[in-house]
Amino acid sequence: MDRILLGHGSGGRMMHQLIREHIAPALAVKDLGDSAVVDFDGDARRLAFTTDSYVVSPLFFPGGNIGDLAVNGTVNDLAMVGAKPLYLTAGFIIEEGFPLEDLKKILSSMAAAAREAGVAIVAGDTKVVERGKGDGIFINTSGVGALTGDISLGPQQIRPGDRVLISGSIGRHGIAVLAERNGLAFDPPVLSDSAALNSLVSKLLDPPGALRMMRDPTRGGVATTLKEMATESGCAITISENLLPLSGGVKGACELLGLDPLYSANEGVLIAVVAHAAATLLLHRMRGHLLGKEAAIIGEVSAGDERTSGMVLLKTVIGGTRIVDMLPGEQLPRIC
Amino acid sequence: MDRILLGHGSGGRMMHQLIREHIAPALAVKDLGDSAVVDFDGDARRLAFTTDSYVVSPLFFPGGNIGDLAVNGTVNDLAMVGAKPLYLTAGFIIEEGFPLEDLKKILSSMAAAAREAGVAIVAGDTKVVERGKGDGIFINTSGVGALTGDISLGPQQIRPGDRVLISGSIGRHGIAVLAERNGLAFDPPVLSDSAALNSLVSKLLDPPGALRMMRDPTRGGVATTLKEMATESGCAITISENLLPLSGGVKGACELLGLDPLYSANEGVLIAVVAHAAATLLLHRMRGHLLGKEAAIIGEVSAGDERTSGMVLLKTVIGGTRIVDMLPGEQLPRIC
Repeated sequence: MDRILLGHGSGGRMMHQLIREHIAPALAVKDLGDSAVVDFDGDARRLAFTTDSYVVSPLFFPGGNIGDLAVNGTVNDLAMVGAKPLYLTAGFIIEEGFPLEDLKKILSSMAAAAREAGVAIVAGDTKVVERGKGDGIFINTSGVGALTGDISLGPQQIRPGDRVLISGSIGRHGIAVLAERNGLAFDPPVLSDSAALNSLVSKLLDPPGALRMMRDPTRGGVATTLKEMATESGCAITISENLLPLSGGVKGACELLGLDPLYSANEGVLIAVVAHAAATLLLHRMRGHLLGKEAAIIGEVSAGDERTSGMVLLKTVIGGTRIVDMLPGEQLPRIC
Repeated sequence: MDRILLGHGSGGRMMHQLIREHIAPALAVKDLGDSAVVDFDGDARRLAFTTDSYVVSPLFFPGGNIGDLAVNGTVNDLAMVGAKPLYLTAGFIIEEGFPLEDLKKILSSMAAAAREAGVAIVAGDTKVVERGKGDGIFINTSGVGALTGDISLGPQQIRPGDRVLISGSIGRHGIAVLAERNGLAFDPPVLSDSAALNSLVSKLLDPPGALRMMRDPTRGGVATTLKEMATESGCAITISENLLPLSGGVKGACELLGLDPLYSANEGVLIAVVAHAAATLLLHRMRGHLLGKEAAIIGEVSAGDERTSGMVLLKTVIGGTRIVDMLPGEQLPRIC
C-alpha cells in the first residue's frame, strides 16, 4: 500500500491499520479511543483553547511543510494569550490517492515540531475524501494550554505611550510558499520562518503587566495584525518603515513580484505591545533568544484623535505617512 | 454577497466581515482572538480532549446536517469517556463558491445543537480553498470536557459476566445519508439519529464502577465498535441478533440495498458495557431518557478461550453463531 484509499477513512480495519501502524506511532498518540484523558495543571484555573485548519498549497515549501506549520501555528495561538501550550489534537482530511510517503514525512515533521515545542499530541482523527474532493491533505490542529496566575493580555490592556515590538524579520513564510507554488528559486532561498514561539514568549511575561498584548501576524501579515490591534484597542499605532526588520531576500522577492511584505504571512514572528518603561528590557530579552535575534521596536501607540483612533500609520522611508489598512480581499491565497 | 469567495479566507477584511457578521454571531463566539481563555472546573484535575473532522456528503440529510452532526459527534466523544462536555472549537474549510445561505443554515444547526448539549463554542477558524479543491464544506470540531472524581472507563475495566447495553435502534444515520445521496425516499423516511448523548450518559455514572466502558458506534457501526471492545479488553462478546433494536425502516432499507445494519453508522446511540448486577437498573435509567426509549441488553462478555478471546460472536435469529469482524474496507463512504 503506497497510497491512501477511500477504505482508509471508513472506520473499518484499513483505517485502524493506518492509524495503528503509521499515524499513532509517528505522533506518539497513546490513546486511540474517543477522547484523550489528560492531567490538567493543578494551579491553573483557566485554560486557553484554540483551533486552526491548515490548507497550505503546496504542502512542502522551503523551510517546512504543512506538518510543522500545523503544530507551530496552534502552539503560537496558545502562546499569544500567555498560556503554556500543553496538548494538541490532529485531524486529517486526506484525498484518495495521497502518497503514503508524503503522509509519513508530514507526520514526522509534526512529531518533531511537537517535541521542539514541548507539547503532546493526544488525540487524532482521520477522514478520507474522494479524489477531486480535497487537495492532498488538510490538517486541523486544536490546542489546549494552561493559564497560571492572573495573566491577562489583550487589546483592552493597551495604553497610549506603549511601544510595539516585533520579534523577527517579516514576510518570510508568505514568500517561501509563493516561490514554491510558482517554481521561483531565489538565491539564497527565502525560508519559511515556521517556528514555535512559546519559549520566546516565556521570556516576556515578567515584569507583570508590562506585556499588554501579543499576536502572531500570519494570514494578512503584519499590516492586518497591527490594524486588528489598533481597531480593538481604539488607539492609533504609528510604525516606522525603516525600523521594520526585512531580509534582503524578502525585499528582493517583493520588489520583483509587486507584493507588499507588510501583507505577507509570518509563522514564527510575534508582535508585542509593551509598556514604554519595559520596552528596552523586553527587546533585549527577545534578542537573547534564538527566534528573536532580529527583534526591533517598530513603533508606538497613541490615543489618536477623531481621525486617527483605531488606525495604523506608517512613516515611510522617504518621510511620508501612509495609512495601513487590512487587505480588502486576498494577496496570497492558502499560505497556511 | 451570496457565495463564499477566495478572499473570505485570506485573513483580510472580507474574512473579518464574514466572521464578524455571520460566523461569530451565529455561534455566539465572543473571543475572536488567537485562543479562547475559559474557566476550567475547579474540582476537575483531568480533562478530556478530542477532535473530529466532518466530511459528510451530502451536507443535508433527513434528520440533520453537517452542522449538528459536528457538534453532537464531538460532544459524544467527550461523553463516552465520562467527561462533562464544556467547550468546543469549530474549524471550517469552505470551497470557493459555497452558498452563504447553506453556511447560515449549517451555523444555525451548530448553534442549536450546542445549546441543546449545554456546551459553548469558544473559538473558530475559517479557511477557503479554490473551487474543485474541497467539497462544499468540511467542519472540524474539537472539544474539551471535565472529568471529576475518579471516573475511569475503558476496555481494561471490562470483566467476564458484564452485560452489553445499547441505547437505541441501530443504523439510522448511515441509511439516512445513503438514501439522501442516492435520491432514495423511504416511507416513512429513515431519519438520522444525530443527537448529543451527554445527558443520557449522566444517568449511567452511578453506582460507581458499574459502568465499565462506553463507545458510540459511528463509522463502522455497531459491529466495529463491539470488535474494538472485544479486542481491547481481550474478552469475548456474544450478542443476540434478535435483541438488537432495529426499526422497520432501517431493516427494509438494508434488505433492499443489501447492507448489513451492524455496519451502518449511528450518531446518537451508545454501547455500554456494565456490571451484570447493575444491568437492569441502568437499562431502566436509559429507557427513562428520551434518547434511550429503545434501549436493550443485547449480549454479554465472557473470558473467551484461545479461539474466541478478542472476538465478537453473533447468535443469529435462526440459531447459528456468526463471527462479527470489522469491515476490511468501506461499506458507506463519508457518512460523518
